[in-house]
Amino acid sequence: MSNVQLKELRAYTKEVVDRSIETLKDYLRLPTISAQNKAIPETVEMVCQLIEEAGGEAKALDDLGGNPVVYGFFPAGSNGDSSKTLLFYNHYDVQPPEPLNEWESEPFEPTIKDGILFARGVSDNKGDFIARLTAIKVLKEVAGELPCNIKFMVEGEEEIGSPNLAPYISKYKDLFQADACIWEFGTKDEQERVNMVAGIKGMAYMELTSIGADIDMHSSVGAYVDNAAWRLVQALATMKDKQNNILVEGFYDGIEKPKESEIEAVSRLPFNEEAVSKLYGLKRPLITTEKGIDPREAMVFQPTMTICGIESGYTGEGAKTILPKSAKVKLDCRLVPGQDPNLIFEAVQKHLLKHGFEDIQVTLLNGQKAYRSDFNHPFIRHVLQTAKEVYEKEAVLAPNSAGTGPMYEFGNQLNLPIVSTGVGWVKSKAHAPNESIRLKDFEEGVVHMAYMLSSFSQALKGKVEEDNITT
Amino acid sequence: MSNVQLKELRAYTKEVVDRSIETLKDYLRLPTISAQNKAIPETVEMVCQLIEEAGGEAKALDDLGGNPVVYGFFPAGSNGDSSKTLLFYNHYDVQPPEPLNEWESEPFEPTIKDGILFARGVSDNKGDFIARLTAIKVLKEVAGELPCNIKFMVEGEEEIGSPNLAPYISKYKDLFQADACIWEFGTKDEQERVNMVAGIKGMAYMELTSIGADIDMHSSVGAYVDNAAWRLVQALATMKDKQNNILVEGFYDGIEKPKESEIEAVSRLPFNEEAVSKLYGLKRPLITTEKGIDPREAMVFQPTMTICGIESGYTGEGAKTILPKSAKVKLDCRLVPGQDPNLIFEAVQKHLLKHGFEDIQVTLLNGQKAYRSDFNHPFIRHVLQTAKEVYEKEAVLAPNSAGTGPMYEFGNQLNLPIVSTGVGWVKSKAHAPNESIRLKDFEEGVVHMAYMLSSFSQALKGKVEEDNITT
Repeated sequence: MSNVQLKELRAYTKEVVDRSIETLKDYLRLPTISAQNKAIPETVEMVCQLIEEAGGEAKALDDLGGNPVVYGFFPAGSNGDSSKTLLFYNHYDVQPPEPLNEWESEPFEPTIKDGILFARGVSDNKGDFIARLTAIKVLKEVAGELPCNIKFMVEGEEEIGSPNLAPYISKYKDLFQADACIWEFGTKDEQERVNMVAGIKGMAYMELTSIGADIDMHSSVGAYVDNAAWRLVQALATMKDKQNNILVEGFYDGIEKPKESEIEAVSRLPFNEEAVSKLYGLKRPLITTEKGIDPREAMVFQPTMTICGIESGYTGEGAKTILPKSAKVKLDCRLVPGQDPNLIFEAVQKHLLKHGFEDIQVTLLNGQKAYRSDFNHPFIRHVLQTAKEVYEKEAVLAPNSAGTGPMYEFGNQLNLPIVSTGVGWVKSKAHAPNESIRLKDFEEGVVHMAYMLSSFSQALKGKVEEDNITT
Repeated sequence: MSNVQLKELRAYTKEVVDRSIETLKDYLRLPTISAQNKAIPETVEMVCQLIEEAGGEAKALDDLGGNPVVYGFFPAGSNGDSSKTLLFYNHYDVQPPEPLNEWESEPFEPTIKDGILFARGVSDNKGDFIARLTAIKVLKEVAGELPCNIKFMVEGEEEIGSPNLAPYISKYKDLFQADACIWEFGTKDEQERVNMVAGIKGMAYMELTSIGADIDMHSSVGAYVDNAAWRLVQALATMKDKQNNILVEGFYDGIEKPKESEIEAVSRLPFNEEAVSKLYGLKRPLITTEKGIDPREAMVFQPTMTICGIESGYTGEGAKTILPKSAKVKLDCRLVPGQDPNLIFEAVQKHLLKHGFEDIQVTLLNGQKAYRSDFNHPFIRHVLQTAKEVYEKEAVLAPNSAGTGPMYEFGNQLNLPIVSTGVGWVKSKAHAPNESIRLKDFEEGVVHMAYMLSSFSQALKGKVEEDNITT
């Protein structure tokens, strides 16, 4: 199906991969922590340089606030198809490395051990960016030129919820316009199958605050003074029942019914309850088990409302007898297509009013819509098919991940199919200490992207071989 | 009614009060923080010395663990009534001074400003101890000798819940045996009336812990992993309703019905809702107002269940998307006569089991029973009557305070009437920064105790003048 031989791509990738890893290590040494506004300018400069060194054109957009959004462009060669463009979405920022004492190597001093490269951001998402640039170099060398246009968006606020991204997509719609998009991440599962997603969940992250007084009081006044913590507890208890059904009126409104093909795909996703339970040290059965539903369906199709944190009064050792002045809870709602974070926020406000908790204040800290690509788009089938050839194993595709990202703005404004795949593995530990990728996954990821690009244009024209596609 | 003239007691007290204040300042310089095990031996030594200097016999009991319990004894003079004994209950430990930045002077460097003495522990309860010793000296000087036996118990763990006191009372019952007891504290209200109590509330201080996993998880797993914080919220919501009724089965069992005289006394207690609301900066009406009940009745006769603190997961700034491994709440139940902290603890355990929260662990951190003396005992009427004469104003007596102390063990094991009165004022701020007493209240307190002692023996024999007693 391809203009170039997979064998040749593999061979040349092997030749250049060591140099790419050195480049990746340099990139990883920059502690680009967006939450702490660290190392942003130097990282932007390096991202632009790396694009230019690979033969592309780079531009750092910064006229709409927030950390700069890097645009990269590699035109199709003279024999290529300049009417077709693939867009890579990446981000150059990383999560804070804390807790530091749990790292076995320095988070910003990339360390290789037994073929595994450890560093903050290596799997999320600096490794993928370097792998994709390497794929472009490999393809150019093997094929002589690029068979299509390639664009990059590398943003710098993904780890803080991409609060400034939408206006950039809107204003620079023409610049980022493409026919399809490869999203940032992907991991191999326990059975060494590449796991891809064609969408993401949305999010409404809220803070609820109950304020009872200006000062903490002696707890003996509990006989007549109302308690902000009890009040918050009572309010929360009206929002979710013991069986984890969300009781906020309107919360489930508008949810799009999953397609048959999506339900079918979900039934083939890997899920090992015992392994999950062991991984986290769970003390109780899964809530899906209690409710008799499939955890994979819950993961993909059902919204959540999670208490991420709650705090009030004295939380130290022993007994301190105070009646706290206030109480606060952080609620993370993961949304599915059809839900709107602003409407969820309003629904929670209305719910509190209706239940007599007009004094509890709600703030929306982060809102993103969910997104699902057309599962059967020829592009997505092409990415799956080429993965199967490169990895010599079927890939697994979920309609959406359980996590969140700014995919909705891409899908909605640029109107293109999106699939996420990358170089992570089952123990990549994104966001956690000892984040890692395996060098062999990086190398295979380079080959996959080069091979996928080599026939991207034909695939979009419907020339995909229809056999043996696993969704 | 007295063998000595009140005028003479006032005159001699005025002569010696300055020296007493100097002694008190020395005592206050010792940072006797039981919660941090600070300055215990030197304070015990000073307490014994002070008793001996006042002509008494002192003994530090320490054979049953915990901080030493000081016993003090002053025998009746040869013309006195050695068949009658008054016991003073005091404690030499103080609360931690934190938050330090809110103090206007050093907490352990006593500072006098406009007739007010500021220091940690001055109102709770070091000032009262020195005032009582001074009263003994004054009475001996004015009357020539003591008219009855006087005993002291000065313990060192009151501020941490007197965990080791009961066995001392039990073992040394004969040593502490007396006919009546003056408890540690008392304050003047806004109308300058001395407020006394004839009892205290009890306490069951519990910690409830919900553990869901060994580690904090990414909040996207909320679709299938149960949330320890939601679980604790749901459990708590079954324990108290929105109207602050406690729903734990058996919680209200066995509560003794207040006597008519107690109810009547409560109706005459001072309570200024507006002042209370302003003092704390309350944002909502009193819960008693919402329920249409008298806050004074709630304060004296109703048990409470207060969340003193709750904690789970991420409580810092902004949005962190975790599903926390565990959640914890601290619950302070103030009990009334008839309730048993151990039975309350068991009731909470049973309640959680019954409602399907068998995984939530409960620990009882502190348990004390409530206690109320016989309100009409001649001794209590004697203390009120002498107060009226000394302060030239009616005193106010409540059946019990809203606070807690180890009074039950005294009342139950020593079987004597108990009333609490002392040298505090409305702004004494016990347990808080800038704790204080007024020097004139100290002086008046000395006179009251000397005058009360001068006719204590007769009063017990029923020779109290019956007129004008305000309860």
